[in-house]
Amino acid sequence: MRNFVVVGNLATTTPEFSLDDIPGTSGRLDILCRCINSAFMLSHGIRHDVRIYLVLCGDDNPKIVCLRGQDLRHLNPDERTTAALLKKALALDATDRWYRSTPGIYVRTGYLADLEIPREIPLYYLREDGFDVKDLDLRRASPEAMEDAIFILGDHIGVSEEDERLLDDLGAKVISVGPISLHADHCIVLINNELDRREASP
Amino acid sequence: MRNFVVVGNLATTTPEFSLDDIPGTSGRLDILCRCINSAFMLSHGIRHDVRIYLVLCGDDNPKIVCLRGQDLRHLNPDERTTAALLKKALALDATDRWYRSTPGIYVRTGYLADLEIPREIPLYYLREDGFDVKDLDLRRASPEAMEDAIFILGDHIGVSEEDERLLDDLGAKVISVGPISLHADHCIVLINNELDRREASP
Repeated sequence: MRNFVVVGNLATTTPEFSLDDIPGTSGRLDILCRCINSAFMLSHGIRHDVRIYLVLCGDDNPKIVCLRGQDLRHLNPDERTTAALLKKALALDATDRWYRSTPGIYVRTGYLADLEIPREIPLYYLREDGFDVKDLDLRRASPEAMEDAIFILGDHIGVSEEDERLLDDLGAKVISVGPISLHADHCIVLINNELDRREASP
Repeated sequence: MRNFVVVGNLATTTPEFSLDDIPGTSGRLDILCRCINSAFMLSHGIRHDVRIYLVLCGDDNPKIVCLRGQDLRHLNPDERTTAALLKKALALDATDRWYRSTPGIYVRTGYLADLEIPREIPLYYLREDGFDVKDLDLRRASPEAMEDAIFILGDHIGVSEEDERLLDDLGAKVISVGPISLHADHCIVLINNELDRREASP
């Protein structure tokens, strides 16, 4: 299972945004919609071995939306229909337990810390000054280990100092995907490609 | 200059599509909007050294829209505002000469063949069974040569047999970006990253 976690610093936790102006009314949920596309979309279907967790921190009652490739339905590549799926998930009365919205989409209240990431899982935090993912030691980061891994990304604002401390405490390795600072959705495309390549030639 | 050419087999050549349903009303102009995002978007600005040519073949009077990073303005990362820029360009009375729509966006009538690609420019055609771009001979495909190169991609339908013959005549090398067949916009992210890496460590 490939796991991506994207922090949406200003992302709305309510369905009260306009599909006609997603960037302007949702705290940049458009960024997270593009991350969903990058995480799942293949030419002929979707990636079933991916999960993405969107941490929506736009107000005092943050929420986490999880999309699971193994049972995900109704996902199209365009931003608007993806935002409509998120709108439906955000209309649920969320608690601190996971509830299913539509097939493969789950929602709960919570911060990044509430994901309760186990210490034994390889954790990678994407930041432009990180260690190049291409140079990660293949013996220590085997395809299997990479497959279990969790990749944490920030939106256009990044990751808060508090969350960075949490990631540091969890032993997250800071990695990058190349010499230029890129949007989170492009980073996910590059991580997926790196994992595809490692799987194809072990 | 990095050049991308994307063929939109069903893509509309008129502004008569709905921004509220881009995939359903424009012949999948949403795919081309995502390709524009992949070609230009950086965390802190846009790539000035990129051009993208969109070949819109959705009716009998095909058009080509060109976006040039060097003078491109008003580009946002989301699909809807990008589609609105294309709508504006398609509202112009196009001829077989380039006309400017908004800053950095140009439009003309024409097919892929009308781009009149010179034979001396390295030409790469992206297809899932192609030669891996990572293994391209670096001596023969130097950073400079790669920089001048043109990368041709198809949308969800691919590239027509006629266009494939044209590309073959022009000596296009068939390349791929990894072991799995991906959407055109993801391929452009991967090509940009490959070129970024080659530039950063010559």
